[in-house]
Amino acid sequence: MSIETAITALNSVLGDRLSRSKSDLALHGQSETHFATTSPDAVLYPQNADEVAQAMRICGEHGCPVIGFGTGTSLEGHTAAIRGGVTIDFREMNAVLELRPEDMLARVQPGLTREELNEELRATGLFFPVDPGANASLGGMASTRASGTTAVRYGTMRDNVLALEIVTAEGKIIRTGTAARKSSAGYDLTALFVGSEGTLGLITELTLKLHGLPEATAAAVCAFPDTPSAVQTVIETIQSGVPMARIEYLDAASIAAVNSYSNRADPEQPHLFVDFHGSPSAVAEQAAAFGELATENGGLGFVWSTDEDEKRALWAARYDAYYAILGSKKGARAVVTDVCVPISTLAEAIEKTQAGIAQSGLVGPILGHVGDGNYHAILLVDPDEEAEREQALALQSRMVTLALELGGTATGEHGVGMGKLDYMEAEHGAAWGLMGQIKRALDPDNIMNPGKLVRQN
Amino acid sequence: MSIETAITALNSVLGDRLSRSKSDLALHGQSETHFATTSPDAVLYPQNADEVAQAMRICGEHGCPVIGFGTGTSLEGHTAAIRGGVTIDFREMNAVLELRPEDMLARVQPGLTREELNEELRATGLFFPVDPGANASLGGMASTRASGTTAVRYGTMRDNVLALEIVTAEGKIIRTGTAARKSSAGYDLTALFVGSEGTLGLITELTLKLHGLPEATAAAVCAFPDTPSAVQTVIETIQSGVPMARIEYLDAASIAAVNSYSNRADPEQPHLFVDFHGSPSAVAEQAAAFGELATENGGLGFVWSTDEDEKRALWAARYDAYYAILGSKKGARAVVTDVCVPISTLAEAIEKTQAGIAQSGLVGPILGHVGDGNYHAILLVDPDEEAEREQALALQSRMVTLALELGGTATGEHGVGMGKLDYMEAEHGAAWGLMGQIKRALDPDNIMNPGKLVRQN
Repeated sequence: MSIETAITALNSVLGDRLSRSKSDLALHGQSETHFATTSPDAVLYPQNADEVAQAMRICGEHGCPVIGFGTGTSLEGHTAAIRGGVTIDFREMNAVLELRPEDMLARVQPGLTREELNEELRATGLFFPVDPGANASLGGMASTRASGTTAVRYGTMRDNVLALEIVTAEGKIIRTGTAARKSSAGYDLTALFVGSEGTLGLITELTLKLHGLPEATAAAVCAFPDTPSAVQTVIETIQSGVPMARIEYLDAASIAAVNSYSNRADPEQPHLFVDFHGSPSAVAEQAAAFGELATENGGLGFVWSTDEDEKRALWAARYDAYYAILGSKKGARAVVTDVCVPISTLAEAIEKTQAGIAQSGLVGPILGHVGDGNYHAILLVDPDEEAEREQALALQSRMVTLALELGGTATGEHGVGMGKLDYMEAEHGAAWGLMGQIKRALDPDNIMNPGKLVRQN
Repeated sequence: MSIETAITALNSVLGDRLSRSKSDLALHGQSETHFATTSPDAVLYPQNADEVAQAMRICGEHGCPVIGFGTGTSLEGHTAAIRGGVTIDFREMNAVLELRPEDMLARVQPGLTREELNEELRATGLFFPVDPGANASLGGMASTRASGTTAVRYGTMRDNVLALEIVTAEGKIIRTGTAARKSSAGYDLTALFVGSEGTLGLITELTLKLHGLPEATAAAVCAFPDTPSAVQTVIETIQSGVPMARIEYLDAASIAAVNSYSNRADPEQPHLFVDFHGSPSAVAEQAAAFGELATENGGLGFVWSTDEDEKRALWAARYDAYYAILGSKKGARAVVTDVCVPISTLAEAIEKTQAGIAQSGLVGPILGHVGDGNYHAILLVDPDEEAEREQALALQSRMVTLALELGGTATGEHGVGMGKLDYMEAEHGAAWGLMGQIKRALDPDNIMNPGKLVRQN
C-alpha cells in the first residue's frame, strides 16, 4: 500500500492517460503565488467520470493522495502535492455537454474555462457572469467558491452552480441537485461540494446558471477625497436599490502604480469604478443616481458613458491595476491577500491595513470588490528575500485578525488551501471541528487533497 | 436510558420551561395537512441557546428524540413526534437581536416570524422578502429551505441566510458563516443546515440578508388561452432580463374556484399575476415589456397599475386562491403537492398533472411560482374518506415521478419531512447514501428529528 503501487496499478488500466514526465510533474507542483513547488508523483488526464472513478478506487485502495487540477491559477497553494500522490488534471474534460437557453442553464465538464464557456454562449444572448480575473476552469472556480468583480450583482459560484456530478473518495459517481431552479429535497450537497477544494470529492460535471446579456451597459468612474467617502457612496447606492453590476475600489497607491505603468495622470486618490447593466434608460438612470450619491459624498470628476471605447477608457486603470502593481517593483512576486468584512466596517479595515503596510515599508496597493466588502492588498516581495515574504505573511495575518474582529472572514474568494489553514480555527471556532467530522465521514483515509482546508490525521 | 428518564432529568434543571399538559402535547403533534396527530412526550420552551444546548446534552445522554418547532405551519409532517421525545418550541426565542442597516443584515432568534421581522424593519427602508404564505417562524423557514412568491427575484432561504448559530446533537453551540457577504473559508455549513429540517442540529440564531424596499411597485395580470402560452411568456420575460419580483400562475380551475368564492367573473382560463419592483420609470418599462411579450403569446386583457387600490384588486384572485380552493369542497382537507421542474418543461408538467387530476375525479386546482418552475396542486379530500386521501397521494406520487423524469425535484419549497421521504432515493440515487453518511457523522444516535428527511437506524 503506497503511492508507487497505486501508480503501477493506475498505469496498468489507465496507462494512456498517465504522465510521469519531469516537466508535467513540475508544472503541476507550481503555484501562482508564494508557495514552494511541490510536485505530484504522477499526473492523470482522464477523459470521463468513469475514468476518474476508476482512478479514485485504485488510489483509495493504495492510500494514495489525489489532487484535482484545473488551470493551476488558484492562489493559496490548493494544488500543491504536499504529500505526493496523483494529480488529476481535467484539461481533457472540457466540453459543453448541453446548453438549455430556455432554462438558462449549461451543463459543462470541469476543465472548461469560463472564457471558453462564454465563447460558446455568444449566439444565445446569455452569459456566465462569474469572473475571478484569471481564465480559470469552471471546476476549479466551483472548488474554491470563486467570485470576483461581478459578484455584487450576479453572486459567487455558490449562487451560480445548480447541480454537480461528483466522484467520491470511495470512487462512486453521484449527482447533487437537479435542473430545477430550487429544491427543498434534503441536504444541500451542491453547496457542500462548492468550496470544498477537492477535499471531499472531485467535480466531474457542473450545471451552471446563465444570465441574459444586458441590453445596455454603462461604465462610470469617480475619484474620492478618502476611502470612507468612497465606501459610504457604495453603501448608499446599495441601500437605494441601484443594482450595480460591478463596483471596484482602487486605493491611491494603486492609482499611482497605474499612472506610472501606463503614463497616466489620474489624481492619486481612492477611485470607484462602476458598471451598470439593464435597458438603455435603466442604465442611464442608475448612472445618474450613483453620480448624485458620489457627488454628495465629495466625489470629484464623476464621468460615465455607454460608448464602447469610452467605457474601456474609463475602466482602463482598473484593468491595468494588477500588472501595473506587479511591475512597480522589479522582479517581485506578490502575496495577494484576500479578506472580506461587513461593508459598514470596510473603510476602517482598509485604512488600518494601509497604515500597517506603510509601517512595514513594503509596497502593497489595495484594490477591492467593494460591494461585497472584499479587498486585496497586493504585497510585493523580492523572491530572494525571505524576510520580505515573512513580513508580507505577517501583514496578511494582521489583516485576517482584523477582518475576524470586524465580523468578517479570512478569505472572501481565494479559498483556504494551505495559505489560510492557520486561521480556520480562529474564524470558525467549534464549527471547525464539525468540518473535520464531515471530512472524516466522507474521506476517512484522507486521500482527497490532504493538508488543504481541514486538518486530519 | 429512555425518554422518561430524559424528561425527569430535563425537569430537574429546566423545569420552568417544560410542559407536559395534554393540550400542549396535542398542539405540537398536529399537522396543517393530512398527517395523523403524533404528540411528543414533553414540550420545552427555552429562552436562550444555553438552555437548548443543556436540553440537547440531556436528551443525547438518554437517547431521547428532539424535535424543533416554530409555528407548526410546515406541510410535510416535519414536527410530528413519530418516535416520541421532546419538542423544543422556540416561541420565547423571538427577539430581533441586532439590525445593521448599513450591512443590510438582521440578527434574529428562530422563533421570530417573518411578519414580525418586517414590522421591526418598517422604519429602516429595508425588508425581508422571503414569503412562503404562512406567517412562519424564520427558524422554521430556514429549516425547510422555504421560499414562495418572491423567490424569482430575491431567492429562497438558501440565498437569504448568511450565518447561523446551531446547537449540535452533542449539545455544543457553534456558529456558521460570518457577517461578511461572501466567504471561501471552508465547507458551507450554513447551506448544510438550511434545509436540514432539524435533523443535524437546532437553529438558535440567524443572520439574514435584508433588501431595500423598492421605490415603486407595479402589479399586472393577464389571461392566456392555454398554459403553454402563459409559460412561454414567462420564459421570454426572464430571458429578456426583465426582473419580475413575483410571477404567479393560476390554472382555469383555480380561477373558477375564485369566481365562485368571491363572486367574480374572470375568464376561466390560465392567468399570470406579476409584480415589478424598481424606480417609477423602471417598473413602467418592465410592465410594458411584459405586456408586449404576453400579447405576442396570445395573452388577453393585460392590465397593470402602480396605484395601491388597483394593485390589490389586480392580485385579488391570487390572494384569495388558497381559501377559495379549500372552500370549493365542504369540510375538505388539502393534500398540497409541491414539485419543481425546469421551466422549459413546466407547461408539459402542468398539463399532464391536470389530465391525471381530471381522470381521478378529485378536485385539484393548480397554482404555481412559475418563474421558478414550482407548482402546487391543491388536492381536496374528504377527511372521512381514506380512499380519497389515498387517491390524492397516488396523484402526488405521479407528479413527483413526472417531475423527476423532467429533471426536476420532488419538493420545490415544502421540504421532505415524512411526506417526501419515499421519493428521496429516486431523486438522489447514490447521493442519498451520502446524506445518510453526513447524518450519521453529526447525529450518530439519530436523536435529531428522527424519521424525517433521511432514513437511519
